[in-house]
Amino acid sequence: MYPRLVVSDGAKAIDFYVAALGAKQGERHVGDNDKIVHAELTIGDGITIALKDEGDGDPAPTSLGGSPVILALDVDDADALGEAMVAAGATVIYPIQDWDYGSRGGRLADPFGHLWMISQPLS
Amino acid sequence: MYPRLVVSDGAKAIDFYVAALGAKQGERHVGDNDKIVHAELTIGDGITIALKDEGDGDPAPTSLGGSPVILALDVDDADALGEAMVAAGATVIYPIQDWDYGSRGGRLADPFGHLWMISQPLS
Repeated sequence: MYPRLVVSDGAKAIDFYVAALGAKQGERHVGDNDKIVHAELTIGDGITIALKDEGDGDPAPTSLGGSPVILALDVDDADALGEAMVAAGATVIYPIQDWDYGSRGGRLADPFGHLWMISQPLS
Repeated sequence: MYPRLVVSDGAKAIDFYVAALGAKQGERHVGDNDKIVHAELTIGDGITIALKDEGDGDPAPTSLGGSPVILALDVDDADALGEAMVAAGATVIYPIQDWDYGSRGGRLADPFGHLWMISQPLS
């Protein structure tokens, strides 16, 4: 299973996920006006997301005013990833910190309004 | 990576995903007023989603008026899964049909407003 993210600017979103998350782009299908119809991205070890430009009844978070899906990503270094995301334009929602349940993590919104919970296990 | 779905009624949503998608419930943390704080579900071969009740700034699709994330699920029998989802209360958005790019699938909204694209490869 993978999530397909609807975004307000597909081309810029791909650039963000490559820069901030180290994603690698796979398939990329472009339609009229350079809109992304379907693009696939691999993050880390085989983790995949897809994305598309909004339209045809599919709204982006910026049009809806939020997102009801939080993308949970387990990483080796939550602080480093959080800093890379902020440097690329993300906004901190819950700062990265240690949690009682054995992990260190936080939540950020990317520039397109999608929500990421990044966490690493505490040894 | 796994998506955490914010829903308007966590307990009913778990029942739906178990009945319609054959999900198995793992961890289930319940807070005040029986609200689901965090529940984990396994769908098929190790696919995981989590869910939580809306609140604390996290809106459900029913509050936002939609979702900007489409959950893409590859299955063996898209028609059977689509029928099971509809029987459990889902709504068809794009009927299940054959697509030129080698798959058979469609899109449904579950009773909590989350969007599922189910597809199977065409042999």
